[in-house]
Amino acid sequence: MADVPTLVEQARDGRPRAVARLISLVEGASPQLREVMAALAPLTGGAYVVGLTGSPGVGKSTSTSALVTAYRKRGKRVGVLAVDPSSPFSGGALLGDRVRMSDHASDPGVYIRSMATRGHLGGLAWAAPQAIRVLDAAGCEVILVETVGVGQSEVEIAAQADTSVVLLAPGMGDGIQAAKAGILEIGDVYVVNKADRDGADATARELNHMLGLGEARGPGDWRPPIVKTVAARGEGIDEVVEALEKHRAWMEERGVLADRRRRRAALEVEHIAVTALRRRIGDLHGDRRLDALAERIISGETDPYTAADELIEGLTNGS
Amino acid sequence: MADVPTLVEQARDGRPRAVARLISLVEGASPQLREVMAALAPLTGGAYVVGLTGSPGVGKSTSTSALVTAYRKRGKRVGVLAVDPSSPFSGGALLGDRVRMSDHASDPGVYIRSMATRGHLGGLAWAAPQAIRVLDAAGCEVILVETVGVGQSEVEIAAQADTSVVLLAPGMGDGIQAAKAGILEIGDVYVVNKADRDGADATARELNHMLGLGEARGPGDWRPPIVKTVAARGEGIDEVVEALEKHRAWMEERGVLADRRRRRAALEVEHIAVTALRRRIGDLHGDRRLDALAERIISGETDPYTAADELIEGLTNGS
Repeated sequence: MADVPTLVEQARDGRPRAVARLISLVEGASPQLREVMAALAPLTGGAYVVGLTGSPGVGKSTSTSALVTAYRKRGKRVGVLAVDPSSPFSGGALLGDRVRMSDHASDPGVYIRSMATRGHLGGLAWAAPQAIRVLDAAGCEVILVETVGVGQSEVEIAAQADTSVVLLAPGMGDGIQAAKAGILEIGDVYVVNKADRDGADATARELNHMLGLGEARGPGDWRPPIVKTVAARGEGIDEVVEALEKHRAWMEERGVLADRRRRRAALEVEHIAVTALRRRIGDLHGDRRLDALAERIISGETDPYTAADELIEGLTNGS
Repeated sequence: MADVPTLVEQARDGRPRAVARLISLVEGASPQLREVMAALAPLTGGAYVVGLTGSPGVGKSTSTSALVTAYRKRGKRVGVLAVDPSSPFSGGALLGDRVRMSDHASDPGVYIRSMATRGHLGGLAWAAPQAIRVLDAAGCEVILVETVGVGQSEVEIAAQADTSVVLLAPGMGDGIQAAKAGILEIGDVYVVNKADRDGADATARELNHMLGLGEARGPGDWRPPIVKTVAARGEGIDEVVEALEKHRAWMEERGVLADRRRRRAALEVEHIAVTALRRRIGDLHGDRRLDALAERIISGETDPYTAADELIEGLTNGS
């Protein structure tokens, strides 16, 4: 098997197997994870990351595929990351039901990857940003991150994107569902898909109303647009791309893009640091230091808080 | 308001208001928390802690009250801690529905306290051990920790006890529920309450069968007894106390009690340390160090893992 520098070089040249191998390395928290991340760092920052969220049935997969087509027409290299926070399966497991994506299977300008995050060390959404970095370094100019499933984790994954697209469909009570899931707060662009169905106008109106109920916006603030699509027929997809590009330009003009990325990076560092510290403490199980502290607590010689201070002191000295 | 040393002295003399005040201090994660815990440490370790868990409707409250009566007859000072992991209310809030406990309201040898743990800093079960320490230092020889509500948190709270009592009642499908909730693994003593009802024998048999299905036990191993009670009439309660005392003696003979307490103390120290470290990192939000690291990540100068290492380095130097 190729070593990390070789894999990174091959991935930069867009070789799919190297990209796949690198994602597997970062996804599985392999021993080479740190080496991979360090090697990728100088190659990242070029991709525009778009998150797609929405309840099952709104047509996320179809919309993602249509967006891939639209971006390919514009000559962009595209990465797709389908994240399922509820599935313990990874790699190709999800690809079975992603038949529509097969339109792009033979296109060397498209890289598609499914990943599961349940059971991942440190939980939920934290394998996704590493996989995004791999696709970024591999030269993907646009990365579509599609979440499968619903709930809080969806919101977390959306927070990894530069621009978040929230998809709805008519007649699913999505408006209320969206409000419940808190996705009304995360959308930069809203898409009402299946707009050829009854109730599409009502859904758009309801959504418009709910978005208007938010706090008053200043003259330079972003007003999330609502785009109607029939993704299965490619209708409205150009308008979605246009809305995305508008949002991206708006963010760049105002420094919002750098701010978002900085905030994301800070949260990620925090998460990795907490996980690492927790692991260091975990490594002490059965260690004489933790045992000795516990012994002193049950004998009444010290209390848990003083003991925790001592433990932290020991960790910070790297001992 | 009295200072901490005075409160601790008064609590040791069994003065209820001092005990109440100390529990409020440890429960609310007050600034005096550390001072209180340090002052209590030398006074703790004398209490025998019994956890009572079981689905709503099995008669936990009635059983707890009956056990208080039984231990009072034996001249023991008793503390009761009713923990509700699902309620945001604390202090007296839960006492409303604990009318039966009013039997003991005027008994100076009994201290009763309800506490809620939802929303507690560091979550779930971690205020309970501190409150247990207060009751322990106040001279309670037996502390009954009754969990209100069900689920994983119940199991966590049971893990704080020296001996765990799992209560069931006939005809509630409790056997299956118990297995689901994992409480079949935590019981040291099982009680089938409401044993005057139809199906009590069936429940006991089913339970016996399920317990027998576990791994084979060695000759010195503890075989959890199943005791049938009608707590509302005090029937079978002496047998429960007998089973508890037997379990305690068994644990003491084999060093199991000290082992359990040591393991609990180690977990507690670990939890406090992780919480403290997380808070230290949280304090860095908006700090120039975290911002600077984030900036270097988005510019591709470093990666999140290397940045996390630097962050930890900074924390451990106490800077």
